[in-house]
Order: sequence, then structure tokens, then C-alpha cells
Amino acid sequence: MNTKAIILFGHGARDARWREPFDRLVVLWRAQHPNVRVELAFLELMQPSLEEAISSLTGTGDNEVVVVPVFFGQGGHLRNDFPVLLSACQEKFPEVKLSTTPAVGEDSAVLQAIIDFGASAL
Amino acid sequence: MNTKAIILFGHGARDARWREPFDRLVVLWRAQHPNVRVELAFLELMQPSLEEAISSLTGTGDNEVVVVPVFFGQGGHLRNDFPVLLSACQEKFPEVKLSTTPAVGEDSAVLQAIIDFGASAL
Repeated sequence: MNTKAIILFGHGARDARWREPFDRLVVLWRAQHPNVRVELAFLELMQPSLEEAISSLTGTGDNEVVVVPVFFGQGGHLRNDFPVLLSACQEKFPEVKLSTTPAVGEDSAVLQAIIDFGASAL
Repeated sequence: MNTKAIILFGHGARDARWREPFDRLVVLWRAQHPNVRVELAFLELMQPSLEEAISSLTGTGDNEVVVVPVFFGQGGHLRNDFPVLLSACQEKFPEVKLSTTPAVGEDSAVLQAIIDFGASAL
């Protein structure tokens, strides 16, 4: 059976509190999409790594994983580091179909929500 | 006359393409809130700095500036670097009322838009 899961992939930071919105995203996802498993993964400074997150999902049967970069801009991290990392993960998990989306900052609804948040502060 | 402006404050990055969503935010803001001036500012690696952005807004008459951190998480940059920077700016521009909001990643509508973007990729 094909089952698809999602990984929300963030940069990571030294301060543990940085991940709070990411933890909130997981809570929201599980409430709204209970049939699609979700894991967080971080490029650096936080756990789990992308490889660990994929391993955790595939270990329980998911064989298709969509990685969503929770980044605003597409700079060096997403253009250079991320493809290399993803490709290494694909080699380690040949039985899993990995795919990705653009960064969430490319999405017009995300940008509109930011605009509305700013406007609400005026 | 009191006039209020907004600064969308991002991290900055080496790759100039990283700022594309920020430039899009400015275009959206100007289309939707033409009476409130907007500037971008970056913590590091990109121009303008927060000080330069404030200077540019106050130089043309705005005397109240709301700084919106376009960050997901509130880690060291927002908890440590940003308050110091803001306080230094407030000292340099005593005639301007500076205020800030939480990071956009604290906003539930922003998080929901990210969830919806992820769901649309499944």
C-alpha cells in the first residue's frame, strides 16, 4: 500500500524556543490531517535531521514523503545545501519516493497572511 | 501630524534571491495599504539595516514606525539581537515612536497558511 507522509523542514536554531511555531505546525497538522503523518526536520542546530525524520516515517510504513521547506527565502540553504541533503537521503532510502515543494515563502497565501498580520498591528 | 509606517524586518542572506518573497511583500503591502509606507530591513547580510530603514521613513515625515519581524521562530536573533538593535535605533531617532510585534510565525493565520500549502502538495 502506498502511504504518503509530510516533513516540515526548517532551518533550526540554538535557542530551543525557536522551534515553538514548528511544534505548533505539527499540532495543527495532526488535528487537520490525521491520516497523513507529519514529522519536523531541521537543517542544522536542532533534531531530528532530515535523515532521521525520513527514517522515522518509513520505519512505520510510509513510502512516499513530501518535504516542505518552512523557509521564507530560497537562498544558499535551499538552493545548495538542501538538494545535496535530499539526494543523500534518497540514496539512503531508495524504497521511499521523496519529493519537495518550493519554500513556504513562495506561497501567496502565506505572504498574504503576513501582510494581514502586519496590518493588524497598525 | 502623526503618520505611521511599517518595517518588515527579515534575517538577510548572502544569496540576493533570498529576498524575493520580501520584495513581494512590499509590492503586496503597497497595493493593499497605499497610505502606510513600508520599508524592508535586514538583521545582517542584506541592506538596508533597521537604522537605514527608519531613517528613510522618518526623513519623509513618518514619526511612528511598527517593526514586524518576518521570522518564524523567536530564538536568539529576536530575543537578544533585535531588542538591542531596536533600542539603539530608538536612541538615534528619539523623535520617532518605535514599536514591534511578535514574529509572524507566532500568528495563527500564518501557520494555517503554511499547513494549507503543505496539504496542497499531497
